[in-house]
Amino acid sequence: MPKVVVLRWGHRQRDERLTTHVALTARAMGAVGIILTDAKDEKIQRTINEVVKNWGGPFFFQMGGPWKTVLKNWRTEGGAVVHLTAYGENIQTSNVIQRIQATEKDLMVIVGSRKVPSEFFSSEVSDFNVAIGNQPHSECSSLAVFLDRLFQGKELFKEFENARLRIVPQKHGKKLFRKSKV
Amino acid sequence: MPKVVVLRWGHRQRDERLTTHVALTARAMGAVGIILTDAKDEKIQRTINEVVKNWGGPFFFQMGGPWKTVLKNWRTEGGAVVHLTAYGENIQTSNVIQRIQATEKDLMVIVGSRKVPSEFFSSEVSDFNVAIGNQPHSECSSLAVFLDRLFQGKELFKEFENARLRIVPQKHGKKLFRKSKV
Repeated sequence: MPKVVVLRWGHRQRDERLTTHVALTARAMGAVGIILTDAKDEKIQRTINEVVKNWGGPFFFQMGGPWKTVLKNWRTEGGAVVHLTAYGENIQTSNVIQRIQATEKDLMVIVGSRKVPSEFFSSEVSDFNVAIGNQPHSECSSLAVFLDRLFQGKELFKEFENARLRIVPQKHGKKLFRKSKV
Repeated sequence: MPKVVVLRWGHRQRDERLTTHVALTARAMGAVGIILTDAKDEKIQRTINEVVKNWGGPFFFQMGGPWKTVLKNWRTEGGAVVHLTAYGENIQTSNVIQRIQATEKDLMVIVGSRKVPSEFFSSEVSDFNVAIGNQPHSECSSLAVFLDRLFQGKELFKEFENARLRIVPQKHGKKLFRKSKV
């Protein structure tokens, strides 16, 4: 299974909640970390640290750094770049996911918070442009479905290390365990 | 395929962007409409109307109405209720999705914007509690993956009626068509 890092482009302060949701989705759906380019947001950093402390890791959250440099480094180290966009190849009706898997490369997945620079669509920046349907919806949803398809659902029973909290799935009701000293 | 209506519980004004993302996800991933219970938000109404006008429908957006009444009516009319929650049965490791499909009922899918009343977990309110992994992440992501699994990806090539705009999927670049008078 490839290692996946999410690149969140275009974050601004007003995007705090959405970017947090994108970061939590990245973690829950199998990515190893998320990079916020060209922006800093200490509040999100604290939220993610808290989630990793309670629910386990590893999962990294990095901020700053121009997107061009981040992507250039990623490619230099042999990774491929996937850009999620409504304009891309439809994940359901094309063979894009199979071609991505066939590269056997680690993946940087770009999600934008607003209209991205047109360069993102070019082969200089993205190896693949993938659409979760060709309708406008949410970068959160696109990221979740993309990762679920890429990892074929296996990300959903991954064990996180050093978790203090653990949910035990229930048909009804809620069951939560908290790690105890022995 | 069952008809799916999303019930968005707990919306407050600060949730405007997230609730909009939830509504757009519901539309793009195959639901026929979304109901905001116990809240009104004209701005979201306008956004959804605009999306339906440009990208096609049908997709309805309703506001107000206490959640108890909405759910009671749904069940009276023969529908089943699915509550998406990190505490539910893991969609990947349980047979919950097969059992949902086996009911052959239309589905109301409840997503909360914050901690929901504990009644939501009981069998009086929800027939099924479903988790997209038992980790905290985003109601947007949960809704997207749930619908993608329920409809087995077929929602992603659905044709919307009366669309004025149409994206043609591209490996690179963007291609958008606007409906023209003949």
